[in-house]
Amino acid sequence: MIIDKLRNTIKKYGLISRLDKILIAVSGGPDSVALLYLLNGLKEEFKLNLHIAHLDHMLRPDSCKDAEFVKGLASRLKIPLTTIQIDVRELASRGSLEEVARNVRLDFLFKLAREIKADKIALGHNLDDQAETVLMRILRGTGLYGLSGILPKRNIDGYQIIRPLIEARRRDIEAFLRQKKVKPCLDPSNKEDIYFRNKIRNKLLPLLEKEYNKNIKEVLSNMAESAGYDYDYLSHIAGIAAKRLGPKIHLDKFLKLHPAVQRLVLRLHIARLKGNTRRIVFQHIREIEDLILNRPSGSVVDLPKGISVIKKKKKLSFYRSQN
Amino acid sequence: MIIDKLRNTIKKYGLISRLDKILIAVSGGPDSVALLYLLNGLKEEFKLNLHIAHLDHMLRPDSCKDAEFVKGLASRLKIPLTTIQIDVRELASRGSLEEVARNVRLDFLFKLAREIKADKIALGHNLDDQAETVLMRILRGTGLYGLSGILPKRNIDGYQIIRPLIEARRRDIEAFLRQKKVKPCLDPSNKEDIYFRNKIRNKLLPLLEKEYNKNIKEVLSNMAESAGYDYDYLSHIAGIAAKRLGPKIHLDKFLKLHPAVQRLVLRLHIARLKGNTRRIVFQHIREIEDLILNRPSGSVVDLPKGISVIKKKKKLSFYRSQN
Repeated sequence: MIIDKLRNTIKKYGLISRLDKILIAVSGGPDSVALLYLLNGLKEEFKLNLHIAHLDHMLRPDSCKDAEFVKGLASRLKIPLTTIQIDVRELASRGSLEEVARNVRLDFLFKLAREIKADKIALGHNLDDQAETVLMRILRGTGLYGLSGILPKRNIDGYQIIRPLIEARRRDIEAFLRQKKVKPCLDPSNKEDIYFRNKIRNKLLPLLEKEYNKNIKEVLSNMAESAGYDYDYLSHIAGIAAKRLGPKIHLDKFLKLHPAVQRLVLRLHIARLKGNTRRIVFQHIREIEDLILNRPSGSVVDLPKGISVIKKKKKLSFYRSQN
Repeated sequence: MIIDKLRNTIKKYGLISRLDKILIAVSGGPDSVALLYLLNGLKEEFKLNLHIAHLDHMLRPDSCKDAEFVKGLASRLKIPLTTIQIDVRELASRGSLEEVARNVRLDFLFKLAREIKADKIALGHNLDDQAETVLMRILRGTGLYGLSGILPKRNIDGYQIIRPLIEARRRDIEAFLRQKKVKPCLDPSNKEDIYFRNKIRNKLLPLLEKEYNKNIKEVLSNMAESAGYDYDYLSHIAGIAAKRLGPKIHLDKFLKLHPAVQRLVLRLHIARLKGNTRRIVFQHIREIEDLILNRPSGSVVDLPKGISVIKKKKKLSFYRSQN
């Protein structure tokens, strides 16, 4: 039963506490609608205070029907709703559509969460999304952080994001909705890298399930869980080390750290300037290591998004070279 | 150039020191023959003392031709050779052929290494083997340890195993041999899980290269390198924790450890009894965690290969329940 799965995930990661005020992002697609019903089912038990957020990103001609559908849900379940309409495509003249849509969505959620004083923001990602994400990252190249996939619980800019459905299969979510006789909208295209992801979802994962391991999705999800714990521990250690080393990294001290911790310290410095380490691949880290070990004082390595790193007199510093 | 790749790997992992006595396992296949030629080329520079080991496992009707071929190489390069003939199939009445072949081979190498007082045992695995191994483990389900793949340097029972070709592509190894005008024997079937591995080698990896990422093998190899460092660090921390907790694990203290370290401590205890953690999958660890958190005192969990674990009065102990 999906509700048991949900309870188990909530308990394992400590996702929900009594009296939490939770902002649920409801697109109208199956995942978020199921999440809404399920959290509504736990409302009494946890004394939850729920609030729905819906962003009409105007990407599909029928997207306002999604908004109508979500309004209907909110009034049926008697849960307050905030909607907003933003023409994402118009905004996306700069940058990729997916990235802009993602940022607009997070922005809206964070602002609303602050306004209504929500403790948590709940998103509807499921185990199938998790498997796709992890596989996508493996195919493109990744390390422990990427292998952690979609985290069940995460702090972004002081907001706690929770994903209670991250261990539930898409098919079980759909079965739950059928049984509830709820017909959700189409899954909206608010996921990044739609083309590559769809190829993995519709071609590669079915092939792997058929030919290599019928439990491939569970197996990838378990790997993500395990990598998530490992990353959490290592990044904690690296955070302490980075603080001790200071913003200008003393290379003599740095090189005494374990190589695993060294690499994470470099990533933390990049994330501090860039907000995240997306687009930072293995080769970048290797180039910084080459800078540290083999290049003369004064040498610079340029990284994506206008971040650079310079080695000077046995010290390494990261800085913004452009915007 | 493959020799630059080799030097780079040797330097990065500290595989070879001056005056090393190295036992090279030469099956007669491309990898081990290339390794022999390449190490022979570094002989003067590192003042190496080389010795060849060849095991005729009698698995193929023509396997004695491999032995003749290796004898020819040894006399041409003037490197001492020790060969042995063992009917692996006869021995394999108990257990799987691959596992028996693997154990016989390691046994022979370890005994010979001790006899001739070798510092290191060199094996010929390459980057393509690495990619296959990592992908195979991902498909079957694995954690950080499995993701580390084939380690470039490893201690087994006090013997140092080195794999100087682990970052070299199979095609570059073959090109090197063509250029040297050396015609190796067929790659012998001394690898585990031949059927599954061959399917991955001949079907899945070519598909992934063509449709998803042409550098998929390098990307998997980089991931293995990175996971290898992370695992090394975490297992070091877990080793210290396991020592402090003692053979009967005080659960109150255990539960104060970070979950990532907890899981590795459990694996270390299993490895201590079983020699390794092969066949221990995610579900086993999860079951032990359930034992710790939810089951009454006196409960037992049975693991593969006759290992059991019992919870008694807030203590956890692993023991051999059968042989």
